Amino acid sequence: MQAVVVTKASGSPELKSGIPIPVPGPGEALVKVIRAGICATDLEIIKGYAGFEGIVGHEFIGKVEKVNPESEAGAWIGKRVAGEINVFCNVCDICKSDDYIRKRNHCPDRTVMGIVNKNGTYAEYLTLPLQNLLEIPENVTDLQACFVEPLAAACRIVEQGLVSTGYKVAIVGDGKLGLLIAEVMAQQDCHVTIFGRHWDKMNLCPEKITKVLSDGSEELINKYRDCFDVVVEVTGNMGGLMLTSEITRPLGTVVLKTTCASGGTEFNTSPFVVKEIKLIGSRCGPFASAIKYLKDGKINVDKLITKVYPFKEAITAIEHAGKKGTLKIQLKME
Amino acid sequence: MQAVVVTKASGSPELKSGIPIPVPGPGEALVKVIRAGICATDLEIIKGYAGFEGIVGHEFIGKVEKVNPESEAGAWIGKRVAGEINVFCNVCDICKSDDYIRKRNHCPDRTVMGIVNKNGTYAEYLTLPLQNLLEIPENVTDLQACFVEPLAAACRIVEQGLVSTGYKVAIVGDGKLGLLIAEVMAQQDCHVTIFGRHWDKMNLCPEKITKVLSDGSEELINKYRDCFDVVVEVTGNMGGLMLTSEITRPLGTVVLKTTCASGGTEFNTSPFVVKEIKLIGSRCGPFASAIKYLKDGKINVDKLITKVYPFKEAITAIEHAGKKGTLKIQLKME
Repeated sequence: MQAVVVTKASGSPELKSGIPIPVPGPGEALVKVIRAGICATDLEIIKGYAGFEGIVGHEFIGKVEKVNPESEAGAWIGKRVAGEINVFCNVCDICKSDDYIRKRNHCPDRTVMGIVNKNGTYAEYLTLPLQNLLEIPENVTDLQACFVEPLAAACRIVEQGLVSTGYKVAIVGDGKLGLLIAEVMAQQDCHVTIFGRHWDKMNLCPEKITKVLSDGSEELINKYRDCFDVVVEVTGNMGGLMLTSEITRPLGTVVLKTTCASGGTEFNTSPFVVKEIKLIGSRCGPFASAIKYLKDGKINVDKLITKVYPFKEAITAIEHAGKKGTLKIQLKME
Repeated sequence: MQAVVVTKASGSPELKSGIPIPVPGPGEALVKVIRAGICATDLEIIKGYAGFEGIVGHEFIGKVEKVNPESEAGAWIGKRVAGEINVFCNVCDICKSDDYIRKRNHCPDRTVMGIVNKNGTYAEYLTLPLQNLLEIPENVTDLQACFVEPLAAACRIVEQGLVSTGYKVAIVGDGKLGLLIAEVMAQQDCHVTIFGRHWDKMNLCPEKITKVLSDGSEELINKYRDCFDVVVEVTGNMGGLMLTSEITRPLGTVVLKTTCASGGTEFNTSPFVVKEIKLIGSRCGPFASAIKYLKDGKINVDKLITKVYPFKEAITAIEHAGKKGTLKIQLKME
């Protein structure tokens, strides 16, 4: 089969042929990939973040082709599925605790598709445990289904119990994930404001979401100082993180959705201590919630597509995804 | 009266005479200071942190001499008291919410004794609202009572509901506040470990507290990786904060008790996001809890005294407090 592979030696992604189709282990399915999405994390991994080697990618929709053992195949064959990217060990203390969310996000021996010790989704085939697969309802298109993973990451904030009806919530950052989070927060009947640098991106949000062009000025900070119960940081830079500390109310919450590079601005813990702010990390989320939003037509992801490339143009697609102003790039396998 | 005053112009503290004795406003008491403690925050304020001008200091014990109006004096006159340092406005939305802890720590118009727009405790007299005063039980000495404010700050972690019986708690930093926090955590029946750079300081902790010499080595980090439910950062430097991110378990809590200067190490948010750690600021705490620990003899603060100076040697005392290895310095007014 063909797949996009990164190695430490090459330093850039290569579309390779002749890679063996993976063989599903016990309890696993072989899935034929229909479509894969390119995410900012993938671009970091391609650049060498986390030292990953193998097939890149973690967003996908596919069709189940085989199950091991065959006796378990049942109704799985031919189903369109999304798949949880974390594969937990089922053996360690955390997995034995039977707390599904802890297993999913925090099994210390987990592999993560396209990120930690497991091949990813920019490939014609992949394998995943059956327990990771979720069927995609008929009325959800392939294009939409490929957003399940990032939409689930947005839903993680709800799963963590960080917002309630009526909360004033701000999103700092107007990239793909910021836009998805803004919509998920609006679905919780929160009063949502997005701070970004691009009107064209922010204007993709529904009308009820307030848009603020974030110029980092003293005037802007003073206008919104201490205004929000919850602020979600998705810029991935230290300037964004420091803005969150200004606009969060005392005893409020800042949610960290991306890892920040310091970007020249020092991290000043003082406002976090003085205002006793809770700063909380937030990673992978519930696929079922994301699928339900798409099935019910509550969140429109179609508008987030910049371009869909055929798989043979994967390298061009990856380059495009890294350009400023690009939203979602997808790879179509057939 | 005499008092230690800082001004932006002078840049260093001065012991001045002939300062008028303050006049208590309605609902306030005039308190004759018996003893004042010197804390790291005072030293920062003396250096110009937060732009404070006036009489420095916020730790004290005193005796009530006058109440305004006199008809309210009742049993107050002659009482030995400690005093909450935050004076809230009683008028703003937060104060009207009638949530005492929000008022105390987060009234936006609050003044803070010796820190924000209110004269402090390195003086022969001070004024405070009656609602800020707490009587000191007879069996608590002046020396001990002067620790009520920092001990209350340690108790804030309990008030915030961040620890429970049986938790594994680490304290990173073996200064005065770190040692107090370690003891308060041990009183919650937590398993407590203190990480510090000074055996002589750590050995002041009770035997049941585990002491670890923190050399920042890979070996140390690997030994304690993901070990603790709650980690309290009291070093005030970025290296300490990054150590907390390594030794906190996934979904665990890091408590920020001091404002960190970056100290050359960059803040890396990645472990906080990947492990979904909650990082929470923690400031002033409940005086009543601190007084109870002292009254019941549960926490021995006497061992934390490095030296007590007569008030006329206040400037020498402040210099001593700033020297490496010094624990608590107190000023005795008479």
